[in-house]
Amino acid sequence: MTASAAATPRNTVLDLSRLLDPAAIAVIGASTNPKSISGQPLMHMLACRYEGKLYPVNPNRAEVQGVKAYADVREVPRPVDAAVVAVSAAHVPKALEQCGEAGIPFAVVLTAGFQETGDAAGADMQRELDAAIARSGVRVVGPNCVGLMNVRTRAYMAFGGALGDKTLRPGPLAIVSQSGGFGLSIMALANAHGVGSNYVVSCGNESDLTFFDFAHDLLERDEVKMIAAYMEASTEGVRLRELGRHALEVGKPILMLKVGNGGAGRRAANSHTGRLTADYTLFRTAFREGGFIEVEDLDELADVARLVIGGKYPKGRNVGVLTGSGGWGVIMAEQCERNGLQLPPPSAESQAKLRALNSTFASLNNPIDQMANYAEQNKTLECVLDDPAFDQFIVRSGSGPDVDVWASRMIEIAEKTDKPIAVNWASVPGRDADVMQKLEQAGFLCAIYARRAARAVGIFTEFALKRLKFAQAGAASPARPLPRRPLDIGSSKRALSEHTSKQCLSQYGIPSTKEVLLSLADIMALKACPVSFPVAVKLASPDIPHKTEADAVRLGVNTLEELKRAAQSVQQSGRRHIPDARIDGISIQQMASGIEVILGAVNDKNFGPYVMVGLGGVMTEVLRDVTHRFAPVTMDDARDMLGELKGTKILEGYRGAPPADADALAQAIVSLSWLISDHRDRIDEIDVNPLFVRARGQGVVAADALVVTRGTDK
Amino acid sequence: MTASAAATPRNTVLDLSRLLDPAAIAVIGASTNPKSISGQPLMHMLACRYEGKLYPVNPNRAEVQGVKAYADVREVPRPVDAAVVAVSAAHVPKALEQCGEAGIPFAVVLTAGFQETGDAAGADMQRELDAAIARSGVRVVGPNCVGLMNVRTRAYMAFGGALGDKTLRPGPLAIVSQSGGFGLSIMALANAHGVGSNYVVSCGNESDLTFFDFAHDLLERDEVKMIAAYMEASTEGVRLRELGRHALEVGKPILMLKVGNGGAGRRAANSHTGRLTADYTLFRTAFREGGFIEVEDLDELADVARLVIGGKYPKGRNVGVLTGSGGWGVIMAEQCERNGLQLPPPSAESQAKLRALNSTFASLNNPIDQMANYAEQNKTLECVLDDPAFDQFIVRSGSGPDVDVWASRMIEIAEKTDKPIAVNWASVPGRDADVMQKLEQAGFLCAIYARRAARAVGIFTEFALKRLKFAQAGAASPARPLPRRPLDIGSSKRALSEHTSKQCLSQYGIPSTKEVLLSLADIMALKACPVSFPVAVKLASPDIPHKTEADAVRLGVNTLEELKRAAQSVQQSGRRHIPDARIDGISIQQMASGIEVILGAVNDKNFGPYVMVGLGGVMTEVLRDVTHRFAPVTMDDARDMLGELKGTKILEGYRGAPPADADALAQAIVSLSWLISDHRDRIDEIDVNPLFVRARGQGVVAADALVVTRGTDK
Repeated sequence: MTASAAATPRNTVLDLSRLLDPAAIAVIGASTNPKSISGQPLMHMLACRYEGKLYPVNPNRAEVQGVKAYADVREVPRPVDAAVVAVSAAHVPKALEQCGEAGIPFAVVLTAGFQETGDAAGADMQRELDAAIARSGVRVVGPNCVGLMNVRTRAYMAFGGALGDKTLRPGPLAIVSQSGGFGLSIMALANAHGVGSNYVVSCGNESDLTFFDFAHDLLERDEVKMIAAYMEASTEGVRLRELGRHALEVGKPILMLKVGNGGAGRRAANSHTGRLTADYTLFRTAFREGGFIEVEDLDELADVARLVIGGKYPKGRNVGVLTGSGGWGVIMAEQCERNGLQLPPPSAESQAKLRALNSTFASLNNPIDQMANYAEQNKTLECVLDDPAFDQFIVRSGSGPDVDVWASRMIEIAEKTDKPIAVNWASVPGRDADVMQKLEQAGFLCAIYARRAARAVGIFTEFALKRLKFAQAGAASPARPLPRRPLDIGSSKRALSEHTSKQCLSQYGIPSTKEVLLSLADIMALKACPVSFPVAVKLASPDIPHKTEADAVRLGVNTLEELKRAAQSVQQSGRRHIPDARIDGISIQQMASGIEVILGAVNDKNFGPYVMVGLGGVMTEVLRDVTHRFAPVTMDDARDMLGELKGTKILEGYRGAPPADADALAQAIVSLSWLISDHRDRIDEIDVNPLFVRARGQGVVAADALVVTRGTDK
Repeated sequence: MTASAAATPRNTVLDLSRLLDPAAIAVIGASTNPKSISGQPLMHMLACRYEGKLYPVNPNRAEVQGVKAYADVREVPRPVDAAVVAVSAAHVPKALEQCGEAGIPFAVVLTAGFQETGDAAGADMQRELDAAIARSGVRVVGPNCVGLMNVRTRAYMAFGGALGDKTLRPGPLAIVSQSGGFGLSIMALANAHGVGSNYVVSCGNESDLTFFDFAHDLLERDEVKMIAAYMEASTEGVRLRELGRHALEVGKPILMLKVGNGGAGRRAANSHTGRLTADYTLFRTAFREGGFIEVEDLDELADVARLVIGGKYPKGRNVGVLTGSGGWGVIMAEQCERNGLQLPPPSAESQAKLRALNSTFASLNNPIDQMANYAEQNKTLECVLDDPAFDQFIVRSGSGPDVDVWASRMIEIAEKTDKPIAVNWASVPGRDADVMQKLEQAGFLCAIYARRAARAVGIFTEFALKRLKFAQAGAASPARPLPRRPLDIGSSKRALSEHTSKQCLSQYGIPSTKEVLLSLADIMALKACPVSFPVAVKLASPDIPHKTEADAVRLGVNTLEELKRAAQSVQQSGRRHIPDARIDGISIQQMASGIEVILGAVNDKNFGPYVMVGLGGVMTEVLRDVTHRFAPVTMDDARDMLGELKGTKILEGYRGAPPADADALAQAIVSLSWLISDHRDRIDEIDVNPLFVRARGQGVVAADALVVTRGTDK
């Protein structure tokens, strides 16, 4: 077993309850030095009054830090739920085996010195550790981690300065981190923002239990309302997608801080599609698809956590903004728009109610500007609370001596609605802290800066809408729009010819340019062209997948004479390029026109099958304006993809051109997604490049295609 | 006089000293109610112990708020430096005239009810006010403002809750705000972040003294190290650019919070260039050109202010990052890159020094990761301090019991270098606040979040490099690369013909396609085409500037026969389009090829002349990928413009095409910038669309051009 290899499938019963909420803990290698790594777990649990039983194990001491010690973990009174292992690397395997003999189901191995060293000694140690884990039957956290904490019971099977923080309060956040120290930073900062954690897990080398094991288990716990995840590089794309789906099923967000996104470069790939897909692209695709909220830093994480705690999920992007400061209103409106929110005007009915208030407004539009009259602002809020124009509200807080009265009243009003209300705090940090705390305890986000408030509300809204859509659609997979079709593509790893590639597309309803495949001799004997001019002439050879490179393509051929010359010429070029290339014939194709699109699909080794679409030429080659979804996709997904393209207006009819057949393009994306999905065991990559999109109602047509098969015959 | 009309030219001597630092203040309309607007200035100045003399003016009271009052401002003992005017709108004109008679040079008019009401009564009041200002000779702040504050002497000629803040400390920030309340918010929040203000000015209606008057004056004051500006819509583009230049001259940044950037839409314009230029584009162009740092919100403003206070300006974008947390290092590196900073590795020499330290590093690259060993991190800092690889540093702070020792030592080390060092604070808000304060007092930015730290360092670095470049280049205007050339374009407002437009370009060295202008009769008599085929055939009429719309263009004409048909056809089309159109002839032009570019110049009524460049077709029409500079520009500016285009790689040779002649394109931009600049009194707009950029060494050629003259004969 190496890292991650032991990852437990989600459908396996894996109950981490005794690990996450242990009633008795053995500390193997407990040190008398409370500052040392091996002394800290005991020290912190004693200092914070861990609720359960503690058994230090130390062969040289009768007691450690004032607690009776045992020479051997097998001597410790049973039952023990979890052991902290803090002996040197060489002694860890034996300690795990003894845990197994002692009937201890879980061990948290803090010790470093395994595969993470990157040297031979570390690799040897890792092998011994993996063997010991397998033999012992003990489920292991780490090694090389800062441990695992239950904040409610103070089961701090961990080390680090943050554990000494006496202000730590338990709360609805669970933290799973692939960086030990950073997990504790998340806990400390969230706590400082009033967001308590219940569980904190540092994954370490993941030699047995992995990031995904913890995250799946935590999602199922009632006391966990959300997970904060710090994730480094990972090859576990499929498991990430499963986790995202699980989060949507239980309606709890995973606040994802993903690092290691730069510099990784493009993937090696045969297809253009593969080369246009950076590693990080697929992570983001998984985040968008599943119950994740990607956050950039810990301030954002804390703000979103407060919205989750508030427990109200907006049903749309329309925000009513209430302000007493015109300047602030302008800033907030701009920040809302930058974060995908919309500010519609209040309904006529609401405006009438507002006019009847006998208050003075600088604006009855949105933001509703009540000119520093915070005493009256709650009345305004009541007027618009049920206005269907608004899915949620952002309110500029009152300030001054009556701020407490204002806040109390607003809390009462908020109880009448299931629309979330976020507060942008008008005061300076620290001022009226008691009122802010009262609002936070009542479930409000109180953000001092407009930008922070708008950003948090914006990304939380995206999650809320995804959650809503998932709940409405149910757990059903997308309906299959066409039957699974067989493909005649053999079983060896290779690039199929254009002709065969287009046949694959055809099986899934994606039309190609009209084409006739003839031998050179047949062409030379033609009396009339079997395809109407102008035509393209291409050499068809299984050994020459990249025909342009071989100079084996002629476009815009207009006469029979030209056709014959072109046919001779492409065959000669092919022979020059690869003298013994097998030649299937020469393909005569109708020239297509329309808007040029690149459509692709790849069966990614980490994430599974996905589709990609981009507009051709400069848009793809220079601007990399492409977008991705995992396959299969629905028509809605496909239309969303087209809407995400920066150049999407090109499809609407640019410079007076008629609108393109975007529906047919979306349909082609759906079909391609089923093609790669149905045949994921046999196909690696598909390029449809270019696909021409004709005017509305006239469909699409593939002018070239390349299918690279996976090869299953070895 | 209406708002802004009285703006004082910068070269006029305007000394605001007595206004900004008054030794005696009259409060006209001082109320006995300390909570009312007219009672607050006196109340706050008394409560905060204003250093100068205070004279309430109130005809009905012998004393106001315990201070001897005067019935008439003319009875107040002289000299008085400034009067606060808080009487009702109808009484303001008279009060100002009385100030004039009393020899008071400045008045701060808090009263509202003038043009800002938008109604006829307000407009009448405004006219009376303007007349009174002119008659009185008093220089006026406002009306309809929250006032003006000197925080050092507590001359609070203003009202608002923030004035009661007992924690306000004077400092190096001056605030000029077009929103009254928001200026006070900036003051309060900056103060809470340890950044004190010395002057706060709310501009109000700007009926006399304007935003620009204040900003220019404040830039010249030694005690002002930077200005925070809140700016709404403005038509004063030229003055904004002058202000930006002034800021660069004195080397002090203007932290600009510009709002009202959305929704304004495109400008009405005859040219494509004009339509591609949003209002906000020219503001951003002015911000980039001048000594501005655009900030999005007040947290960013406070962070950048701390860097200015630190007083060290980086000489480049290379940052050395020191960390004890691998996870944090990854986040910081990504955030730095997003904000235009670079993380080069340390020099070999530095790395050798680091290895000799006998410390353990997780990475000797950048970030330099010392694995939580903060005790040793200062030694690491000393090793790399003089490394020329780094222009500046971001250091993850220590934490725990020895954080004070760490901080003191780092402050000592920082004294040895002129490279700025920013601290990313490892702890939670509030923890070790004394140490953080000590660092801030020593001039360090201490930002808790990696993103905030990187963003502040990034935008401050852009300012520092602009400041450095300006200092090196000196105050000289760009050298003229070609002499001023006369243009034969008449003096009426009109769109010039393509032929005349191209002659204008030619005068400034921008070549056009080879062209012959002939009458239809001459063409019909031709025996050979005077331009080599293929050619374009276009009708030349001063009355038909948009020839394509009139169907008066034929492209790709290949034979003499086709040419004659095309000539007849375009003349017919023109006649159909405008029956009595004047016809100069028919232009036969060589067809050009290369990379299609749109080049434009506009003499903007607010900002003055500018140039614009974009890549043709989709890039401009759909993506609006264009960039702007005020004219004239240098070759460096023009090259920077090309580098800013998202599609800039197209010029480098895309899909195997040879690199384009970017130098010739840059030269054309420079030439066009001088053309619009030299003839700004006669030309409104110029489109060169398309300009073809040929392969390197082969220059550019304009295939079409449109010059719209300004018209000076009315």
